[in-house]
Amino acid sequence: MTRNFPTAVTIVGMGSMGRALAEAFVDAGHPTTVWNRTPAKAEPLVAKGAVHASTIEAAVAASPLIITCLTTFDDTSTALEPAAVTLSGRALVTVNSGSPAGARAMAAWATDRGARFLAGAVKNVPTAVGGRDTLLYYSGDKTVFDEYEATLRVLGGDTVHLGVEPDLAAVYEMAVGALLLPALVGFFQGAAAVQARGLEAGSMVRFAEKWLDMIKSLLPTYAEEIDTGDYTDAASSVNLFLAGAAHDADLTTETNVDTGWLAPLHDLLKRAAAAGHGDHSISALTEVLREPAPRT
Amino acid sequence: MTRNFPTAVTIVGMGSMGRALAEAFVDAGHPTTVWNRTPAKAEPLVAKGAVHASTIEAAVAASPLIITCLTTFDDTSTALEPAAVTLSGRALVTVNSGSPAGARAMAAWATDRGARFLAGAVKNVPTAVGGRDTLLYYSGDKTVFDEYEATLRVLGGDTVHLGVEPDLAAVYEMAVGALLLPALVGFFQGAAAVQARGLEAGSMVRFAEKWLDMIKSLLPTYAEEIDTGDYTDAASSVNLFLAGAAHDADLTTETNVDTGWLAPLHDLLKRAAAAGHGDHSISALTEVLREPAPRT
Ligand SMILES: NC(=O)c1ccc[n+]([C@@H]2O[C@H](COP(=O)([O-])OP(=O)(O)OC[C@H]3O[C@@H](n4cnc5c(N)ncnc54)[C@H](OP(=O)(O)O)[C@@H]3O)[C@@H](O)[C@H]2O)c1
Ligand SMILES: NC(=O)c1ccc[n+]([C@@H]2O[C@H](COP(=O)([O-])OP(=O)(O)OC[C@H]3O[C@@H](n4cnc5c(N)ncnc54)[C@H](OP(=O)(O)O)[C@@H]3O)[C@@H](O)[C@H]2O)c1
Repeated sequence: MTRNFPTAVTIVGMGSMGRALAEAFVDAGHPTTVWNRTPAKAEPLVAKGAVHASTIEAAVAASPLIITCLTTFDDTSTALEPAAVTLSGRALVTVNSGSPAGARAMAAWATDRGARFLAGAVKNVPTAVGGRDTLLYYSGDKTVFDEYEATLRVLGGDTVHLGVEPDLAAVYEMAVGALLLPALVGFFQGAAAVQARGLEAGSMVRFAEKWLDMIKSLLPTYAEEIDTGDYTDAASSVNLFLAGAAHDADLTTETNVDTGWLAPLHDLLKRAAAAGHGDHSISALTEVLREPAPRT
Repeated sequence: MTRNFPTAVTIVGMGSMGRALAEAFVDAGHPTTVWNRTPAKAEPLVAKGAVHASTIEAAVAASPLIITCLTTFDDTSTALEPAAVTLSGRALVTVNSGSPAGARAMAAWATDRGARFLAGAVKNVPTAVGGRDTLLYYSGDKTVFDEYEATLRVLGGDTVHLGVEPDLAAVYEMAVGALLLPALVGFFQGAAAVQARGLEAGSMVRFAEKWLDMIKSLLPTYAEEIDTGDYTDAASSVNLFLAGAAHDADLTTETNVDTGWLAPLHDLLKRAAAAGHGDHSISALTEVLREPAPRT
């Protein structure tokens, strides 16, 4: 019987996320090589058992699987360029955020240099890396995914290959990711509002958590309405939200908190109603978002 | 031993939510009287076993506990006015959405007429009414809550009294509720984006659900940062979000989906960075939301 040694892995980029990735591999017993432009940031990982490569060529040469976690795709190709020859034949996996166009350019760059390429995304925070439910998705070369799936799963139990087009992960990243900032600002606005009342922001956490669960429960129905284009069976209509929009001004009146960022959302509601979606499900806003906004 | 009969309950308003409330009481064996301005809408409930009162006076006279679910507080006092004398001594519970000022006015109206008043909110959709985890919160007369807590719990297992000030439920409603529309529009935008790529909106549901779980997991930390005013230990900084904001334009480039509604959020990020919060936690946006927006 052959003994299976854990795959050697190189992590390029020791930012918050790169450090978490490297730590997960060290903890799982994988020989882990790390590299960072600013070498000092690699020290905590070396203390934990990772090997620090002083050049990017040495870092790439150390493992068959190279995972990069730099800020952008451009940073990634810039940082890897000196190791281009060494990359040939190896598996390169990026997990930075970026646009679909950026992912396509990165894929072209990598395959031009003979690397087998997978573009992925970590759909969570650094502290969640390695968690049983932590989601990471990848798109691109399926042979890379199949060969290294068990290794990639060290980073999160919910590890998925979306398809062979290298920009698919970026498409979903972009589609799903855009929900974060608006949801957070909604929460921060609420926090400022309860504080204006002399209450702690912490007192609304459990209610906001429930509210997010409620929103979660609505998504399958909304997706079905959007996929079928049938918005007529409205559990919550555009008009109901328009009535609610009137209350947003009350928040400013009561608490002096700035609700101006909600104005374009109110415009979307009005445009949907004007387009005949007043009694339709709120998911009909999707149709308005597809139209180019009128110039003002 | 005294036999405890279920409390008789009157539900005023047979809209989507009022019908769900009445149905929960009928199902739980409570003698249930219903009233609606447009009487025809009460018919499905009568078919299920509720009693239809043809006047609001008769509806109020039928039960010690009156729960109203009309569109606004103004609608509620208008509809109840003919029954003002009969209301005296009874418990009146409103569950419509509305502003804190509206709740205070409603409380004054109700107590002027000798009613014991509780203003509540159903933090979920009609189909969730009666669920074990469904959250409803109330504020106002604690003796009403204590006396009828078991009855109110028929509407949802997570039933809470927030405090004696009658507008507290509206304060939390307003604080938590404002998160809904922005989060949904974020999802709809993503749905339009994946569809523009020839994929089904349904294919992103499971990723968006995970994303909402991730957002949920961040709230306690953000609330603590906001309550302590210490934003220095940033897991995700304002600058990180500013870098991400650059990708929002890619969504329009790739998919022709209108991302214009995100512009004020980008402004908030820039204002936060300009105020010295660039390296601080994204929750520092709360401080910017507290300031009045600059006039443009
Ligand atoms: N943190 C999160 O919560 C999170 C979650 C999901 C996804 N992500 C994504 O993961 C990626 C990295 O995020 P992070 O939080 O780890 O960022 P970070 O802490 O700011 O680290 C950025 C890393 O990129 C390196 N870098 C940037 N430009 C470079 C260049 N031109 N050449 C070489 N190295 C360069 C930096 O090196 P130096 O140390 O030398 O500056 C550093 O190692 C981003 O795309 C981010 O959107 C982050
Ligand atoms: N549906 C939800 O998902 C949901 C969730 C949480 C909270 N809520 C809140 O619950 C409340 C009711 O919502 P809903 O969905 O049940 O609304 P709905 O289906 O539109 O029903 C509105 C009800 O209010 C009545 N009404 C309005 N103005 C009136 C007046 N001046 N006099 C007498 N009756 C009047 C209507 O009577 P007619 O039938 O005669 O028009 C109808 O019974 C709202 O404040 C809403 O924000 C709803």
